[in-house]
Amino acid sequence: MSFLEISVTDKPTLNNAFLIEGLPGIGNVGKLAVHHLINVLNAKKSLEIYSSSLPPQVTINEGGIVGLINNEFHYYKNSKNQRDIIFLTGEHQGLDHKGQYDLCIKILELAKEMGVTEIITLGGYGLGKIVEKPRVLGAATSISMVKKLKKAGVHFSAEQEESSAGIVGASGLLLGLGRLNGLEGGCLMGETSGYIADPTSAREILLVLQKLLSLDIDLSDLDEKIEKVGALTKHLTGMSDSLDDSEIDISYIE
Amino acid sequence: MSFLEISVTDKPTLNNAFLIEGLPGIGNVGKLAVHHLINVLNAKKSLEIYSSSLPPQVTINEGGIVGLINNEFHYYKNSKNQRDIIFLTGEHQGLDHKGQYDLCIKILELAKEMGVTEIITLGGYGLGKIVEKPRVLGAATSISMVKKLKKAGVHFSAEQEESSAGIVGASGLLLGLGRLNGLEGGCLMGETSGYIADPTSAREILLVLQKLLSLDIDLSDLDEKIEKVGALTKHLTGMSDSLDDSEIDISYIE
Amino acid sequence: MSFLEISVTDKPTLNNAFLIEGLPGIGNVGKLAVHHLINVLNAKKSLEIYSSSLPPQVTINEGGIVGLINNEFHYYKNSKNQRDIIFLTGEHQGLDHKGQYDLCIKILELAKEMGVTEIITLGGYGLGKIVEKPRVLGAATSISMVKKLKKAGVHFSAEQEESSAGIVGASGLLLGLGRLNGLEGGCLMGETSGYIADPTSAREILLVLQKLLSLDIDLSDLDEKIEKVGALTKHLTGMSDSLDDSEIDISYIE
Amino acid sequence: MSFLEISVTDKPTLNNAFLIEGLPGIGNVGKLAVHHLINVLNAKKSLEIYSSSLPPQVTINEGGIVGLINNEFHYYKNSKNQRDIIFLTGEHQGLDHKGQYDLCIKILELAKEMGVTEIITLGGYGLGKIVEKPRVLGAATSISMVKKLKKAGVHFSAEQEESSAGIVGASGLLLGLGRLNGLEGGCLMGETSGYIADPTSAREILLVLQKLLSLDIDLSDLDEKIEKVGALTKHLTGMSDSLDDSEIDISYIE
Repeated sequence: MSFLEISVTDKPTLNNAFLIEGLPGIGNVGKLAVHHLINVLNAKKSLEIYSSSLPPQVTINEGGIVGLINNEFHYYKNSKNQRDIIFLTGEHQGLDHKGQYDLCIKILELAKEMGVTEIITLGGYGLGKIVEKPRVLGAATSISMVKKLKKAGVHFSAEQEESSAGIVGASGLLLGLGRLNGLEGGCLMGETSGYIADPTSAREILLVLQKLLSLDIDLSDLDEKIEKVGALTKHLTGMSDSLDDSEIDISYIE
Repeated sequence: MSFLEISVTDKPTLNNAFLIEGLPGIGNVGKLAVHHLINVLNAKKSLEIYSSSLPPQVTINEGGIVGLINNEFHYYKNSKNQRDIIFLTGEHQGLDHKGQYDLCIKILELAKEMGVTEIITLGGYGLGKIVEKPRVLGAATSISMVKKLKKAGVHFSAEQEESSAGIVGASGLLLGLGRLNGLEGGCLMGETSGYIADPTSAREILLVLQKLLSLDIDLSDLDEKIEKVGALTKHLTGMSDSLDDSEIDISYIE
Repeated sequence: MSFLEISVTDKPTLNNAFLIEGLPGIGNVGKLAVHHLINVLNAKKSLEIYSSSLPPQVTINEGGIVGLINNEFHYYKNSKNQRDIIFLTGEHQGLDHKGQYDLCIKILELAKEMGVTEIITLGGYGLGKIVEKPRVLGAATSISMVKKLKKAGVHFSAEQEESSAGIVGASGLLLGLGRLNGLEGGCLMGETSGYIADPTSAREILLVLQKLLSLDIDLSDLDEKIEKVGALTKHLTGMSDSLDDSEIDISYIE
Repeated sequence: MSFLEISVTDKPTLNNAFLIEGLPGIGNVGKLAVHHLINVLNAKKSLEIYSSSLPPQVTINEGGIVGLINNEFHYYKNSKNQRDIIFLTGEHQGLDHKGQYDLCIKILELAKEMGVTEIITLGGYGLGKIVEKPRVLGAATSISMVKKLKKAGVHFSAEQEESSAGIVGASGLLLGLGRLNGLEGGCLMGETSGYIADPTSAREILLVLQKLLSLDIDLSDLDEKIEKVGALTKHLTGMSDSLDDSEIDISYIE
């Protein structure tokens, strides 16, 4: 009795495409990065996935119009005869383990139908403390993909700190299930405190993607967000005793 | 292996009908409003929905008779050649995300069969503090519905306070799923503290519905409840140190 | 993918039989009463219900032999041409709302196949304090059943204290689902503190059942348990500061 | 909509084989013992079970390669014309009661297909305190299996301490479901504090298995782990006030 409905706007066949996942997660790093890419590349809406594995909830936009929580594909057709991209984002990941599996299996099925051959998942790697220069840590489904990511500046430590926990949620599951389905892939994890939405970490991921995908990415909009969050962080860490909630709005960075 | 059983008392075909939802929620505002309407309009029982998405529990009425927890339709046939109404209420919403989806999908299916063309969901908008003059906030599935609600006195702020969280549960889901099924709708949220059942907030919603549905609604019964809750609130806020539990019964307002 | 397996020992067709439910619950009152009845009436094992709605767990008996947690039917064929009885008991109720529905629906299906026409569910009514003379409170699916229970000494108060919460779990659900399936029934709730297994409350229920079912029930075994629990309770309430865990075994009363 | 995929490396037909389960649990005793056996017997990978009943998560190995969490069979073909063995291990047990049932039912089905006739499950028996000489406690599906285990040194007390709780999870469920499927079996529970991974307890289990399965098992590797954990435990219990987290790595024993 699971509910699943795909609402298609435009479902083109793409050229040797990447699926780039940026669903909400630690520091919202992946979502920030993918939303930035959708905006600066002017990616087109492809389809919406509605599912009972997502929260029974609607969002309300500025005009007062509601929208059922979903996961979405946007696509970017690369004009230079290079590889196309599908961006996966949404307001939520699947709500429990079965929901995570159900959604990721459907996402991979749709992505393969549209021509996806490789998967890049994006996420944050929570450190529990603020870091000045976040690195981008990596993991991948094959040795060749590890090499490719290293060349693009991704950090793989000999004693992988994240090895004990692994990667939880869609960023891990899409890789694991993808490999069972013959799709190679890698995960980019931007180091982040994990306390607030972190555009600085997302920026580092975008620098890696720029190399990996041979794209020019305008980062100016993100730099503004970084400044705002920087100001907020200074405020929070330096003035926490005299904190006046009404002055601070931590909701403007998603 | 989900259990679902519809027990039909009377399932008429209605004229361009509204579905008005008033299931339990914040401040029980929606349920109070719909129960009031069922009583004053003398709406007839249509059907009962029993489901394993609801709690495995029976209620006991005054005579000691048990009833399995359900969701119910009551209908009101408008004698003046105007639009009919189905009222949806019950003791509980679906228990988890799948249960919410399963029930709302069934409710919409039944409502469409009976002639429903528009959905109005009712709920409370929790403020965390007691408010003297609660406003009725709105959200809707289309711009034309937003306009219709504004004309009836519903408040849509430019910086929608509720936009971050959205609408959780049946009040949101019926709109979101309804839109996927071609049904337009809107949500009326009465501002409320969220601490106790709030007939004052329900009254404001009824004043909006009166305009929206061109109905005369006798509010005297609700005014009595408002007085009782007012006395209780004074007692609770003014005498909280000397509180004697046995003197106060907060269960008589549902 | 739900697992359900019925292991039948003996499945006779019974005469206008009662289903008497005594699964674990508040004060284990229902389970104590039904286990007592199975013992003194020498009821025969009929069948075992194994299900993934029950905990993934085995019990270990004194000889070290494991048994998968289940729900069981025992039956008692009344020699005096009177109504037969099926006793329902087990180590656990269904684990969540779907599990409760799945199990109770299967139990009712099996019970009807074997000739059950009426359901009596047993449970505790938690007071949160120790009560000297526990009453047996009732609820039922019809006015005639309310009358029948009253005649047997069951207490129905005008202002039913339990009316707000209703009856949660199998004791309620079997009645609610039973009524949807054309089976009338009633619930007997023995007042109990809710802190420990309460044979005193179970004894009161047995006195009601004795009248209701026209049975002679030997209570001597239960009286021993009552004495043991009485000694324990005195110990716990009078000597709680000097409590030596090793002296007290609260597991010997199930 | 459950996901289940079996990835087969090698699925031989075995001779009157044992299934030996060592999934994570109390003190990781079972997993330690089975991993040791797989290593010293050089057991071959047979198959991997992927399932939505397991966490939506990948592990990352030292090279940065991800692997979807699964349960695995390794097999050992006994060259001396004796009984073969399948080892079951993995990073997780099923995540909830349905998941436990789903996985164990599939495991038993696969095991029977490959020639398994008896099941030995391994686990820890948590004492809540450190024990110098851990015993191996037992439970089994038949009296003859109890005798067999006793002969191999397994402890069955008259007043079985574990009888109240039983055995929770795969170690219990494989026995319980196995018995329903005509497979006899037993559980070996090594006493352990339950606080940390306990190779000492696993060693006691291996000594029992050595007798039970007529195997020579090299324990030297495990003895090293025992020394490391012993040093750690001394450190933790004796120097807990001056504890420097960076000096201690409790992750190296799985």
